[in-house]
Amino acid sequence: MNRKVGVLTSGGDAPGMNAAIRSIVRVGRARGLEIIGIRRGFRGILEEDFVPLGPRDVSNIIQRGGTILKTTRCPEFESLEGQHKAKDILEKHGFEGLILIGGDGTFKGGEALGKIWPGQIIGVPGTIDNDLYGTDFTIGFDTAVNTAMEAIDKIRDTADSHERIFLVEVMGRHGGYIAHLVGITGGAEEILVPEEPVDVIAVAERLKEGRARGKRSSILVVAEGIFPGGATKLAEKLRPLTGYELRVVILGYLQRGGSPTAIDRALATKLGAFALELFLSGETGVMAGEVSGRLEATKFPDTWTKKKPLDTYLLGLHRYLTT
Amino acid sequence: MNRKVGVLTSGGDAPGMNAAIRSIVRVGRARGLEIIGIRRGFRGILEEDFVPLGPRDVSNIIQRGGTILKTTRCPEFESLEGQHKAKDILEKHGFEGLILIGGDGTFKGGEALGKIWPGQIIGVPGTIDNDLYGTDFTIGFDTAVNTAMEAIDKIRDTADSHERIFLVEVMGRHGGYIAHLVGITGGAEEILVPEEPVDVIAVAERLKEGRARGKRSSILVVAEGIFPGGATKLAEKLRPLTGYELRVVILGYLQRGGSPTAIDRALATKLGAFALELFLSGETGVMAGEVSGRLEATKFPDTWTKKKPLDTYLLGLHRYLTT
Amino acid sequence: MNRKVGVLTSGGDAPGMNAAIRSIVRVGRARGLEIIGIRRGFRGILEEDFVPLGPRDVSNIIQRGGTILKTTRCPEFESLEGQHKAKDILEKHGFEGLILIGGDGTFKGGEALGKIWPGQIIGVPGTIDNDLYGTDFTIGFDTAVNTAMEAIDKIRDTADSHERIFLVEVMGRHGGYIAHLVGITGGAEEILVPEEPVDVIAVAERLKEGRARGKRSSILVVAEGIFPGGATKLAEKLRPLTGYELRVVILGYLQRGGSPTAIDRALATKLGAFALELFLSGETGVMAGEVSGRLEATKFPDTWTKKKPLDTYLLGLHRYLTT
Amino acid sequence: MNRKVGVLTSGGDAPGMNAAIRSIVRVGRARGLEIIGIRRGFRGILEEDFVPLGPRDVSNIIQRGGTILKTTRCPEFESLEGQHKAKDILEKHGFEGLILIGGDGTFKGGEALGKIWPGQIIGVPGTIDNDLYGTDFTIGFDTAVNTAMEAIDKIRDTADSHERIFLVEVMGRHGGYIAHLVGITGGAEEILVPEEPVDVIAVAERLKEGRARGKRSSILVVAEGIFPGGATKLAEKLRPLTGYELRVVILGYLQRGGSPTAIDRALATKLGAFALELFLSGETGVMAGEVSGRLEATKFPDTWTKKKPLDTYLLGLHRYLTT
Repeated sequence: MNRKVGVLTSGGDAPGMNAAIRSIVRVGRARGLEIIGIRRGFRGILEEDFVPLGPRDVSNIIQRGGTILKTTRCPEFESLEGQHKAKDILEKHGFEGLILIGGDGTFKGGEALGKIWPGQIIGVPGTIDNDLYGTDFTIGFDTAVNTAMEAIDKIRDTADSHERIFLVEVMGRHGGYIAHLVGITGGAEEILVPEEPVDVIAVAERLKEGRARGKRSSILVVAEGIFPGGATKLAEKLRPLTGYELRVVILGYLQRGGSPTAIDRALATKLGAFALELFLSGETGVMAGEVSGRLEATKFPDTWTKKKPLDTYLLGLHRYLTT
Repeated sequence: MNRKVGVLTSGGDAPGMNAAIRSIVRVGRARGLEIIGIRRGFRGILEEDFVPLGPRDVSNIIQRGGTILKTTRCPEFESLEGQHKAKDILEKHGFEGLILIGGDGTFKGGEALGKIWPGQIIGVPGTIDNDLYGTDFTIGFDTAVNTAMEAIDKIRDTADSHERIFLVEVMGRHGGYIAHLVGITGGAEEILVPEEPVDVIAVAERLKEGRARGKRSSILVVAEGIFPGGATKLAEKLRPLTGYELRVVILGYLQRGGSPTAIDRALATKLGAFALELFLSGETGVMAGEVSGRLEATKFPDTWTKKKPLDTYLLGLHRYLTT
Repeated sequence: MNRKVGVLTSGGDAPGMNAAIRSIVRVGRARGLEIIGIRRGFRGILEEDFVPLGPRDVSNIIQRGGTILKTTRCPEFESLEGQHKAKDILEKHGFEGLILIGGDGTFKGGEALGKIWPGQIIGVPGTIDNDLYGTDFTIGFDTAVNTAMEAIDKIRDTADSHERIFLVEVMGRHGGYIAHLVGITGGAEEILVPEEPVDVIAVAERLKEGRARGKRSSILVVAEGIFPGGATKLAEKLRPLTGYELRVVILGYLQRGGSPTAIDRALATKLGAFALELFLSGETGVMAGEVSGRLEATKFPDTWTKKKPLDTYLLGLHRYLTT
Repeated sequence: MNRKVGVLTSGGDAPGMNAAIRSIVRVGRARGLEIIGIRRGFRGILEEDFVPLGPRDVSNIIQRGGTILKTTRCPEFESLEGQHKAKDILEKHGFEGLILIGGDGTFKGGEALGKIWPGQIIGVPGTIDNDLYGTDFTIGFDTAVNTAMEAIDKIRDTADSHERIFLVEVMGRHGGYIAHLVGITGGAEEILVPEEPVDVIAVAERLKEGRARGKRSSILVVAEGIFPGGATKLAEKLRPLTGYELRVVILGYLQRGGSPTAIDRALATKLGAFALELFLSGETGVMAGEVSGRLEATKFPDTWTKKKPLDTYLLGLHRYLTT
């Protein structure tokens, strides 16, 4: 009888999750495993919402955004009682492994479950935020950056035509990965992130200096988590300091969807397969990642407690690039 | 000596304005006219900010969003004094004609100027709103609709994955042209427009009925002008009535930019050339438009006082399509 | 008991076919009809490959290219024997109507079947070629034009960088609808179509004159049907006449796929519903179309024997636009 | 007086070349260098076609495909005589450094020039082929892969609808980097590259087996350099062996153009700046690259003689993924 492995997606959806599911199902079958899809994240365990997945069930999904397994929050699973219920159900159905595709919240759930359930739990980093230690990129990050960058390319048409200043808010409650890369590649004049305190007066000064030098339009990329209110609040603060009309665009959920880029499809394919390898080699409580071109396993708690450095070389160039 | 014709863009920028400028410059030269670009709309007249445009100056712009001539508001021109100043400057420089690319505000300016300046004034409908009588489509409308529709295609990935309801706010302060077409082509469950009073309770009921029938995600397309606060306000009203989590996405300036679609490039090319024809045939105070495949001139006041009907056949289908 | 209507797609696939199917299924149900999908075109009748379609079966397909009903050629149906077999099967299953989504070949099949089968046959114009009389646009045409135009936008990057001349071959075996609109909106220097004899020597002269005037890169849009060998053959003829390096790009099947534009989704939605209306009002042997904003029915033979005019105004501008 | 550094692009254009030029110009000015653009590659040296570049000259180009400096072949420079002429001109104008953006042919030119000219020569890898040792990715590769992958997403619509087999030819005369990544991320059934002999009979067998298993459409990704004639020739060989209709699409120049992806813009920005650093630290005859996240300099001859490994882990998964 084949060993039974469940797969679920949890947390915010990210482009490439489907490519990871496809890889897990097809490689899993080739390795002699029985892959069971669990619908709606951890809730699907508690509701026994299982669907066996064969190679044909994942045809033609590599290019689709979102997740065919759905995702939702599950407060019940956050309690010890809920976790014990999950353990009982997993044992009843004979699961030997569980692959969790998601972000830090998902892996915290995996870590908790791992303390009471003897099966193996492997994580796959699926989140647009790229805020996980143990992998250079998370699945979905490259797509989200390109989506936001292309939005800025469009906004620049209007900024140039009207000679206006635009604040574009991108995702990033706690980290500036998206904002930094979008800002650099979108040619933004300012990049404001949660990691660094925002000196509103200095920003206003630079905007005024820019205009004095003849600069007539500007784009400011703002991570949503710089302070409560994000770009909207920042614009309110900047208006009296500069006297300029400032326009705000909040990209929001636009960044989550869409067909994944090649990088995200390739990464999802690799990490899905590597997660199975980790399972087969007896690992548990680890996330499959890629660091400097090498596949690596990182213990769950390290993924959210350790801090992955930003690309400081690229960031250091920013002040030279905007003139 | 060649007759001198000025061209300017005014009001909100729209994709295809550059294609119209290119057509006016190249066809104008072929017809023996001297085409002068006026920068920043009516302000450019008052500031004598003129640039002669030859065929090479408009190379490689047919595909660019925004407007190479820039656009801005000009409060000074709204006064009779400003208009007289414009008249004097136009006469000093020997302009015989003026081509205005913009929307109703632009044509109102043209109508006012026409009362005191003897030159000929021709309008070209360049606005994403499609709210002008005298042309089936305005330049920029098709691009804006496609941009918003593609955004909804992406948002649906997330709506489906999370089984959530999204309110997507599109442009349309006074009219629902964009919302209607985006809603139908994006497969939205609800379309809310300024032309019709919004029955919030009925919307809430339909959402609840949909969920009762098994519908787990929905998209509501909301024109910004339904009432003050737009989609954000609507979500606030719907939350207590439904008990659902509702997400809001405001597309905003994203809809203005981007490379124009084929329809917009073709329309801009035709109407730019037709505007010149109207000038050469002695017309003034009219907008160049296309109605049912025929090129037509419409007097300026008609463009904003008469009401262009929505596509009632298509709209009538909406309730059958969403099930 | 509900009246039973079959729907099939036939001929080359076109973006928007799925939007038409969705409209037919959902509007059909609302009108009390039973809609049966027939897979693989006419072959599906002969093979009795039927699938009942309800509103949920067409969820989330409005944005998909291709056709969920598949399409194929069916030589057997071209014989009278095959048509009689089809008639018998349709009668056996109690079909009262048939909706054919496709081009002229499809409607010829419908015309033949209509001579022997008493049920009603209605056509919906689904083909990227736009070569049907009785509708201003066919479903798929706008998407194909935009796809080809965007390809030219990309090729121009390389043409400019290398200062080279590119021949881009687009679809159009017998007609130049695609080539004309792609050429104008892509800013092509030359547009060559089957409707007009190609004067190779004159083309070579114009290329040489352009270069003499300082033009360093050019794009020629070539419909595949100008003569056997298309753009490849044309390049072979032009090389000795000009001495230039000429590059050829054949867009081919790229033009068929992709998510339909707003225009195509809206048109498909309307014409699908209008086809049902024609059925309900007792019509047969006609194609549902839209002409100058009005929905119209056109007898099948007229759709392929009568010639729809090209947009001569736009075409007449071409020589002024390329300088 | 500022030290004078020239920059040129040579070989096939690649998306991101403009982003590299922008970075070199802006960072160069900040570092106190005078940056001179050289037009049309090495030919621009021989023709003394120089243009000083300041920060404003590179505004709004980060998102443009192609190269504002143009590129062309220059047979004259391939001779020793031409190289000596170049040396004399570079000395006459007081150049101290030269930054070459291009591929192996470009760097071979740089290596030859370096033997006789005492100035410093630094390379930046700009080529869609990714066939250079010393950098994980070349500038343009990610964009080209995404462009080709998206083309396959479209072709699959038609392949599925018609249940046909498509051969898609991608770039790669000597290497399969593009084909491999496009094949994996496009979900292709077969990937054929120059590095491995093509066993036509085995391919035919697999196609027949696939059909026997119920697979009705397939995509084969073929690098142009598998053998003379590429995908067209392969289709000719496969037709008699399988009896299937096979369709061929040659992507060709479509893969070169288009707006660069975020990865390519970021990489170009970094490597442009790093090239200046190498210049300032006294290096010459090396290419700026990024390997496993670290910036590294690689001697020119190593870039074309050493072989960069393909991602064997990803490739090893291919046979499991296509079922």
